[in-house]
Amino acid sequence: MDVLGLLHLDELSHGLANLSMFPYFDMAHYIVSVMALREQPGALEVSRVSPLACWFSSMLFCFGGAVLSGIMLAEPPVAPLTNSTSVLLASVIWYLVFYCPMDLVYCCAALLPLRLVLSGMKEVTRTWKVLGGVTQAHSKYKDSLLVMIAIGWAKGAGGGLISNFEQLVRGVWRPETNELLKMSYPTKITLIGAVLFALQQTHYLPLQKHHLMLLYTMFTVINKSRMMLTGSSASPFAAFESAIYKTLFTGYSPYAVLTGEVKKACIDNGTTNRMTSTSTTKESSENRAVGKSAPASPVRGQSESLKAKEESENAETTDCKKTN
Amino acid sequence: MDVLGLLHLDELSHGLANLSMFPYFDMAHYIVSVMALREQPGALEVSRVSPLACWFSSMLFCFGGAVLSGIMLAEPPVAPLTNSTSVLLASVIWYLVFYCPMDLVYCCAALLPLRLVLSGMKEVTRTWKVLGGVTQAHSKYKDSLLVMIAIGWAKGAGGGLISNFEQLVRGVWRPETNELLKMSYPTKITLIGAVLFALQQTHYLPLQKHHLMLLYTMFTVINKSRMMLTGSSASPFAAFESAIYKTLFTGYSPYAVLTGEVKKACIDNGTTNRMTSTSTTKESSENRAVGKSAPASPVRGQSESLKAKEESENAETTDCKKTN
Amino acid sequence: MDVLGLLHLDELSHGLANLSMFPYFDMAHYIVSVMALREQPGALEVSRVSPLACWFSSMLFCFGGAVLSGIMLAEPPVAPLTNSTSVLLASVIWYLVFYCPMDLVYCCAALLPLRLVLSGMKEVTRTWKVLGGVTQAHSKYKDSLLVMIAIGWAKGAGGGLISNFEQLVRGVWRPETNELLKMSYPTKITLIGAVLFALQQTHYLPLQKHHLMLLYTMFTVINKSRMMLTGSSASPFAAFESAIYKTLFTGYSPYAVLTGEVKKACIDNGTTNRMTSTSTTKESSENRAVGKSAPASPVRGQSESLKAKEESENAETTDCKKTN
Repeated sequence: MDVLGLLHLDELSHGLANLSMFPYFDMAHYIVSVMALREQPGALEVSRVSPLACWFSSMLFCFGGAVLSGIMLAEPPVAPLTNSTSVLLASVIWYLVFYCPMDLVYCCAALLPLRLVLSGMKEVTRTWKVLGGVTQAHSKYKDSLLVMIAIGWAKGAGGGLISNFEQLVRGVWRPETNELLKMSYPTKITLIGAVLFALQQTHYLPLQKHHLMLLYTMFTVINKSRMMLTGSSASPFAAFESAIYKTLFTGYSPYAVLTGEVKKACIDNGTTNRMTSTSTTKESSENRAVGKSAPASPVRGQSESLKAKEESENAETTDCKKTN
Repeated sequence: MDVLGLLHLDELSHGLANLSMFPYFDMAHYIVSVMALREQPGALEVSRVSPLACWFSSMLFCFGGAVLSGIMLAEPPVAPLTNSTSVLLASVIWYLVFYCPMDLVYCCAALLPLRLVLSGMKEVTRTWKVLGGVTQAHSKYKDSLLVMIAIGWAKGAGGGLISNFEQLVRGVWRPETNELLKMSYPTKITLIGAVLFALQQTHYLPLQKHHLMLLYTMFTVINKSRMMLTGSSASPFAAFESAIYKTLFTGYSPYAVLTGEVKKACIDNGTTNRMTSTSTTKESSENRAVGKSAPASPVRGQSESLKAKEESENAETTDCKKTN
Repeated sequence: MDVLGLLHLDELSHGLANLSMFPYFDMAHYIVSVMALREQPGALEVSRVSPLACWFSSMLFCFGGAVLSGIMLAEPPVAPLTNSTSVLLASVIWYLVFYCPMDLVYCCAALLPLRLVLSGMKEVTRTWKVLGGVTQAHSKYKDSLLVMIAIGWAKGAGGGLISNFEQLVRGVWRPETNELLKMSYPTKITLIGAVLFALQQTHYLPLQKHHLMLLYTMFTVINKSRMMLTGSSASPFAAFESAIYKTLFTGYSPYAVLTGEVKKACIDNGTTNRMTSTSTTKESSENRAVGKSAPASPVRGQSESLKAKEESENAETTDCKKTN
């Protein structure tokens, strides 16, 4: 791309593309992942009661993408275990974050400046993982855009996508929450990355790979830093998403009944919208059947827990600073 | 088979066997599947809140058999995504059924005559899917009848068999319901088909493939039409099942205690059936431990939700007709 | 190893190593496994309502290890079905244990002396399964100790490790229970076996295979018999585990707050341990969000149900003796 060439970014992008993730960037990824697990509600208690379940959960946070994409491509999901060095590194970090005397490691890593750097480095690994997934899918299924996107997404955001089953390892089951129902920011940005890299791979996107890597990495790192510094969890695509949503997915709204617009609709049609009310009744009867296990609305119920997760990621961890 | 030859059905069966499922029959399968999803309790709300989760659920309804049989044979479960045309077709149908302005597509397709035709065409695809599964298993595992039956069944009734996990995508979790605990009619007829085609493949059934295809397809189509027209969900095998059940599975009934026959048993034996009461107590204490999440009996709890599902499939959808 | 040679155990260990598991030991494994399923709370009711779900559950109890290790190595999880003889044998045993007239088979097999012999024989099959898993992993991933341990463990203790999903087949869902959170004795002994055999395979353990097989088999059989005869479920490694736990996993204890030590900690630091209390609050709010489906502590909740399971395994089944 000429613009980038003119800006003398060619060299920078080549340098980035040749960067090795091991060991420093991988390490940052493991630290941030294990810290995210530790900040999950109940995780600390599990770490005391069953170190093995805690270790397995940590490995799913660190290698979830490789496991998920392995399953999707019918490759052994135990494959990540063959890389002993990575597993050993992740295990040491898991041990230090959870069990270090005086909790030194967690408290240090949770200091805002250090956490900012580590999170930025973790975002860099995302580019490599998404690209790895897209390339792997491309080598198996030539020209199947959808498979490339799916594998790239799974490899980059695997830990989030399998979170239901990761939680099950720790004895937690929240069916009303999953990343497809309400995507968190990391899952969203990974999906966008997977789409871009898949388009680049199939030459629909007239951009060279190393240029795209530079642009995508810069975007994710800058955006993550901005979010951590301002403490906001607002997605940069909110306006875009909202526009798409309004254009495509509101053609017919039987849920007017839920938002008070039902009266107008009834008067317009001169008849009661029987179908809508039937489906609402079915739902409530289902909720009754399931008992008190599910909140009234599965979709509303999860937003709180997801918010808690995001807050914990963006937390300024003032507590640690005080106790130190 | 001479009888069929005499009836001049040979030509008809050859014609049927050479029928291409793509695009019309596949389309009917997608429409009926996506409509079945839309009639699940809570599905419409999910379609508004998260189109992506709704799309993924629809794909599991449409391609669940391919995904499940892929997993069972250690073949990539993403393989259905490689067939871009099918995925595109299913996605367009998903979009039209859920988001078409004025809800035109759903209301039209839900009209009884059209729905009857579409459901009949969907039943035809079942034959092809079951046969495809059996053939695929036969090519990998020669002479293993059980594997052929399992794969044929999974391919033909995959959407139902993985319904627990399909529901999880939509934030619904009903562990007390699954197709093994209480089979619905489509799952049952698919299992029978898988057994027949596996027996034909291994030459235990002295029938030619295209004859069996004709007979099985006719049976499923006629039976489905009858069920939709009469609104009954009575299985045609009820008497047969009941006879098998009574012959084979009632040798020893510790559950007499539940049906009031315990007194007779006690008097006969001259002793209280201690074991039975112990196991009953264990169960109730487990239910207490699980809390209020599970209904008193997992088996009783599901029958209602399954009934709701079947009713929605057989619904005459009078609401749509009225509002149009 | 010379010591064993001197004790003239060489011949015995060679004899053991050449022992064929089929049919007697396999049969004992199936009987004990199906009986363990039957003693699960609610299993008998499921066996009356849905023989198919009950059969599938039994197969997961009998062949769970093969299914799980198959999935982990991306080999077809239906592979156990290809061995028709084993499946037929297991199915016959399933039928006899659940539906035999007068319940003769279960009551006989539940008599202590017979059950002792059968359980001992089942322990012998464990050695073969663990070794089989380790060897299989070794042939695919040379020198990857972790994969060998994982596959050996999965093959030997598969039924336990997938118990959550086996229960789901029967309509039971207990997310607060899993073998990683609180390992039962069979899972623990299998893990130790997998580690030992993996070390032997990679020549870190200076022992010949048949010697290790003899030692490990003797240990498991004797220990199981002791546990059944004394009715104790105390692990022989309790002291060892406790020592490791105290050394490695108590560096930093944020759960002091739960055990009343918080005051001391607060005074020491001269500040309230805000982080700890935050995490406790988060947890309780999560529990509130999940509703009444999970007990206050997932970890505490399961110990009871696991205890019930172990008790049922060690039960002296006096009831049967009386009624016969």
